[in-house]
Amino acid sequence: MITSAFPVSVGLIGAGRMGTFHAEALARRIPEARLAAIADPAPGLAHRLAQQLGCPKAYTSIEELLADSDIEAVVIATPARTHAALVVAASQANKAIYCEKPMAMTLEEADKAIAAAEAANVPLQVGFNRRFDRGFRAGQEKIASGRLGTPQLLRSNTRDPKLADPSRIPQWTIFMETLIHDFDTLNWLNPGAQAIEVYATADAVIRPDFKAQGLLDTAVVLIRYDNGAVATADASFQAVYGYDVRAEVFASAGLVTMGDLLSAHSTTYTSDGASAETVRYDQDLFRDAYIDELVHFTRCVRERRAPDVTGSDARAALAIALAAIKSVETGAPVRPLLSAENPGSTLLL
Amino acid sequence: MITSAFPVSVGLIGAGRMGTFHAEALARRIPEARLAAIADPAPGLAHRLAQQLGCPKAYTSIEELLADSDIEAVVIATPARTHAALVVAASQANKAIYCEKPMAMTLEEADKAIAAAEAANVPLQVGFNRRFDRGFRAGQEKIASGRLGTPQLLRSNTRDPKLADPSRIPQWTIFMETLIHDFDTLNWLNPGAQAIEVYATADAVIRPDFKAQGLLDTAVVLIRYDNGAVATADASFQAVYGYDVRAEVFASAGLVTMGDLLSAHSTTYTSDGASAETVRYDQDLFRDAYIDELVHFTRCVRERRAPDVTGSDARAALAIALAAIKSVETGAPVRPLLSAENPGSTLLL
Amino acid sequence: MITSAFPVSVGLIGAGRMGTFHAEALARRIPEARLAAIADPAPGLAHRLAQQLGCPKAYTSIEELLADSDIEAVVIATPARTHAALVVAASQANKAIYCEKPMAMTLEEADKAIAAAEAANVPLQVGFNRRFDRGFRAGQEKIASGRLGTPQLLRSNTRDPKLADPSRIPQWTIFMETLIHDFDTLNWLNPGAQAIEVYATADAVIRPDFKAQGLLDTAVVLIRYDNGAVATADASFQAVYGYDVRAEVFASAGLVTMGDLLSAHSTTYTSDGASAETVRYDQDLFRDAYIDELVHFTRCVRERRAPDVTGSDARAALAIALAAIKSVETGAPVRPLLSAENPGSTLLL
Amino acid sequence: MITSAFPVSVGLIGAGRMGTFHAEALARRIPEARLAAIADPAPGLAHRLAQQLGCPKAYTSIEELLADSDIEAVVIATPARTHAALVVAASQANKAIYCEKPMAMTLEEADKAIAAAEAANVPLQVGFNRRFDRGFRAGQEKIASGRLGTPQLLRSNTRDPKLADPSRIPQWTIFMETLIHDFDTLNWLNPGAQAIEVYATADAVIRPDFKAQGLLDTAVVLIRYDNGAVATADASFQAVYGYDVRAEVFASAGLVTMGDLLSAHSTTYTSDGASAETVRYDQDLFRDAYIDELVHFTRCVRERRAPDVTGSDARAALAIALAAIKSVETGAPVRPLLSAENPGSTLLL
Repeated sequence: MITSAFPVSVGLIGAGRMGTFHAEALARRIPEARLAAIADPAPGLAHRLAQQLGCPKAYTSIEELLADSDIEAVVIATPARTHAALVVAASQANKAIYCEKPMAMTLEEADKAIAAAEAANVPLQVGFNRRFDRGFRAGQEKIASGRLGTPQLLRSNTRDPKLADPSRIPQWTIFMETLIHDFDTLNWLNPGAQAIEVYATADAVIRPDFKAQGLLDTAVVLIRYDNGAVATADASFQAVYGYDVRAEVFASAGLVTMGDLLSAHSTTYTSDGASAETVRYDQDLFRDAYIDELVHFTRCVRERRAPDVTGSDARAALAIALAAIKSVETGAPVRPLLSAENPGSTLLL
Repeated sequence: MITSAFPVSVGLIGAGRMGTFHAEALARRIPEARLAAIADPAPGLAHRLAQQLGCPKAYTSIEELLADSDIEAVVIATPARTHAALVVAASQANKAIYCEKPMAMTLEEADKAIAAAEAANVPLQVGFNRRFDRGFRAGQEKIASGRLGTPQLLRSNTRDPKLADPSRIPQWTIFMETLIHDFDTLNWLNPGAQAIEVYATADAVIRPDFKAQGLLDTAVVLIRYDNGAVATADASFQAVYGYDVRAEVFASAGLVTMGDLLSAHSTTYTSDGASAETVRYDQDLFRDAYIDELVHFTRCVRERRAPDVTGSDARAALAIALAAIKSVETGAPVRPLLSAENPGSTLLL
Repeated sequence: MITSAFPVSVGLIGAGRMGTFHAEALARRIPEARLAAIADPAPGLAHRLAQQLGCPKAYTSIEELLADSDIEAVVIATPARTHAALVVAASQANKAIYCEKPMAMTLEEADKAIAAAEAANVPLQVGFNRRFDRGFRAGQEKIASGRLGTPQLLRSNTRDPKLADPSRIPQWTIFMETLIHDFDTLNWLNPGAQAIEVYATADAVIRPDFKAQGLLDTAVVLIRYDNGAVATADASFQAVYGYDVRAEVFASAGLVTMGDLLSAHSTTYTSDGASAETVRYDQDLFRDAYIDELVHFTRCVRERRAPDVTGSDARAALAIALAAIKSVETGAPVRPLLSAENPGSTLLL
Repeated sequence: MITSAFPVSVGLIGAGRMGTFHAEALARRIPEARLAAIADPAPGLAHRLAQQLGCPKAYTSIEELLADSDIEAVVIATPARTHAALVVAASQANKAIYCEKPMAMTLEEADKAIAAAEAANVPLQVGFNRRFDRGFRAGQEKIASGRLGTPQLLRSNTRDPKLADPSRIPQWTIFMETLIHDFDTLNWLNPGAQAIEVYATADAVIRPDFKAQGLLDTAVVLIRYDNGAVATADASFQAVYGYDVRAEVFASAGLVTMGDLLSAHSTTYTSDGASAETVRYDQDLFRDAYIDELVHFTRCVRERRAPDVTGSDARAALAIALAAIKSVETGAPVRPLLSAENPGSTLLL
């Protein structure tokens, strides 16, 4: 049962696809939150969405939303390149912050965002929803408990159901927007360890005809950690069977697997053999996780504590993504940038 | 996205355990509904719950709630013996009706409830939530499509996690409150068929010390249908491993299984072997189904169409439950009562 | 590694389908056995099979094989109605005996067979191969260990892949030849308990056109045990998806499931969903069990100890089969005959 | 049924652990083969094993076995470094050859072995038993059929149950003896494609105290193929939960997984959750595959056709293993040697 301390008044920044999804959840599916305002620079967009959802305020100016003293917390769901600056601005406006991934495009940006949230002492949560999936959470708890010993071999993958228009995909999207989930997942599944080497390969395998335009639709990344563990991550923009997100950790005292490809607990057996339905979309798999990450956020806001997925986590995943990109560019393993004092990734060879 | 036709204004009748659960869902988790009022005869109960959930009205008189013209629909979550009369009263008040199972305690009551809803032309949905579980739904769709041919052998089971105080369980609860779910599920999985014979056995196996007081904590029922299919249903009040709800249909062109015992998509492998977490409570398994059945109800209200689970369905399940009770009493197979004109179950021997 | 005490010299009686299968196993796949002779009354049959397998002796007279002092043990794979008399004859000839199921057609026959083997002090094993399947064995060991407490609800099923010529199937085959496996399995999974009531239903569902000729192709049996447990068994002569043999035991401290429908550890995921191959034939599922039951037999012969599946087990399963038949004939629950002193099943109503 | 053309007379070379296993299978579990002779230079070893198995001949001289005109085929199960020379010698003696993996330690050796078998026109099969496992075979057939399109991402792993004495493990064993299975599996699962780049990392993770002595107990290999596919393989010498061999292929039209961690079809559910037994040893998983690969060999001998696993396959896997070793030595990706004319692997950087 929700206590009287709730709901938290939340302002949504960015009324695009993911923003609309979060808005509806905040307005109607999360007892702990109240959708108090929506801001989007596109004329009419915030207003229309606010009207549909019974949200009392709509702005075309993000600054106005941030200046609104009714708003306790913001959900940032704008394009990726704007995230870090909005985290800084929201921190300065003293709002609790939930920011979609990636939180930043460079480590410098990430450091500024983290510093701003710390200076303002506001909670900063990043949208790594996999951490709120029941299966992933159960697996990670096993690892974190220490009962499985030290991680030695890890795997994570993200395979999206269908390649969108290949001409509109920025070159490094597969690392910055897709595999960034896996990098965070792997870091989370190897608690306390630091990535010390990244080797990556990427290609246009689904649509080789777009290779010349820089499309990278398939990628594999190998990550060495300072505790001796080695992780592999792979991603594809087109899994014809649906949405494939799984992970596993092989550790000194056991193995734990996470994720599943089946969408419903039903199997059919006919003269053609056994069959079952697969997960088709991210919302099949993460219906509950998308809600639960925002519930977690509202609770952190109320309890004035740091969320389970912080700006530092976002920075660590970003460091791997940037090293993977450099590895593809150079064909060599790369040491990810570990701190702001170390101004650039280092080629290992 | 929810359209402007929603939300539906719903009044809750009965603020006990299940009523409270529905109330919170209606107030905060179902965009299509608005919790408009709560009625419970117990002093203060409705009022407190309404306050917690921001519900504008609370009544100690159910009649007053039914007379409230703001209310479009009611959710009946009172004790089972009151259900049928409340369905009649709500029909006469022209409210759409969602009624918890069992809808009635006798076939006569059931017939009156159905007749009242029909006369008032209001939607009447009964709380057989299993029909809204993704796995059960996928299985039933396979059967209903005809691709698996004619059902020949069916199974369904309900095993609750933990026996409550055995001295407070009415004698036939295992049939009227627990197996009634299985009877509905089996009827639904054998579309168009009629149960023509019921043989049942029940005993105090978990707590034989309460047998003398009439406790029946474990039961098995065999049902013959008029299309040649034979179903078995079993129930236990105590499955130490959690909440076990599964079904399967063996048909002339295939088999389909439904339900699962695992709560999360994660498996652990250690020197002790493989392990995974089991479903512990009904809400682990049916978290989404409990929401989805009310969403379905609100849509039927708005679209003025009959729900997928009707008063007739409730009556058909009840007829099997009553025949099972008579079978236990007599030790013989029993023909379930098929119509009101046929005033009593028939012993087959 | 096989020790020097082996192989055991085995004579095969009956060179039909199952006999041929056992012969090849004894000759070539079981280091612990040597196929020493084959007997079959059909002219030439034993001789041809012996030649193919390099077996040194072939008889048309079963008596001659039994009189052959080189033979230590026999495998009886003749038609069911001859089994009991051959067990008696082989006992008198002092041979160790492996007999295919059912060991007898009546309880009187069963008692004579058991008495003869006891009088001769020869091992007598019956062909309930399910007991040697790795999965069933693992499940039964869990139950027998006591760690799962007392069995309360049991299930077992046998569904054969394809109905043979329905005009050639004796009326009670589904109980005497098919479900007899399930009755033994259920007794084995409920150690120490006695069946005290049997209720059965059977019909021609696959081929209703043969119902008038007495075909029973589908059956369900409910068995009550004296420890309070209730079991259900079902069988079908035609599972279009393959060979379906599974069981489960719900006990006071846990549940254990046995059996699987998939033939290989491989799953395919395409735009049509997930798929896998099913078990098609008994030898897909029981390839190892068919070997292991004969290995067990040879070891019992060498170690002069009673096999894990005895004549008493065969009798107990037979008693349930006969009670099930009487239940179908009378439409009432039946008490199975528990001893030879009690000369007939008792109608319960 | 075995035809009269069988058995094939087989001579075993090498009576160590694996040789003894093959000897017993040839003598007693494979109708298609006859164990005709055993040779081992260790005094008495061949003789003792021959006696135990009823094998008529034993030699301390391998040359004598090869000169024995009764022998049609040999199984080579000596230490790895002797394999290639024995393949050459057996070819020159005109024997059909089954050789344990690795077939050779260098590409030059491999080329000589292949050339000798070709010159003598004798079948040459290499012991990649995974190809005869039912699950792996089902998966590979799906890929080979073309129905899943072009492979894009592949995985394979071998994790042995328990690290043996680390002081006795040669440095590159994890690549030459363990991952060589995965390299063959990946090549087989990506039919017609050539490995063009190998990047590997290996470490002493299980026993870091033996790192200084050169132990490599954990390794990960990334392989790029000329059809755009990228494979990862990993190995560990100690999986506390048992023997873990799995693979999967993600292709343009689907995914197929192979392998399983569970040893029996039985699952237990208690208040601690669900549990099942894991595969503990290679013979749990590959009991049938170890038999079936030798059955396949005898059939190829009789039918005078090339086995499904050839010397060329062994060479292709070896080329990847050698490239992986060079990658670990240099820290850079390596191009595997594709032909004898190309006398050495090429550093890519």
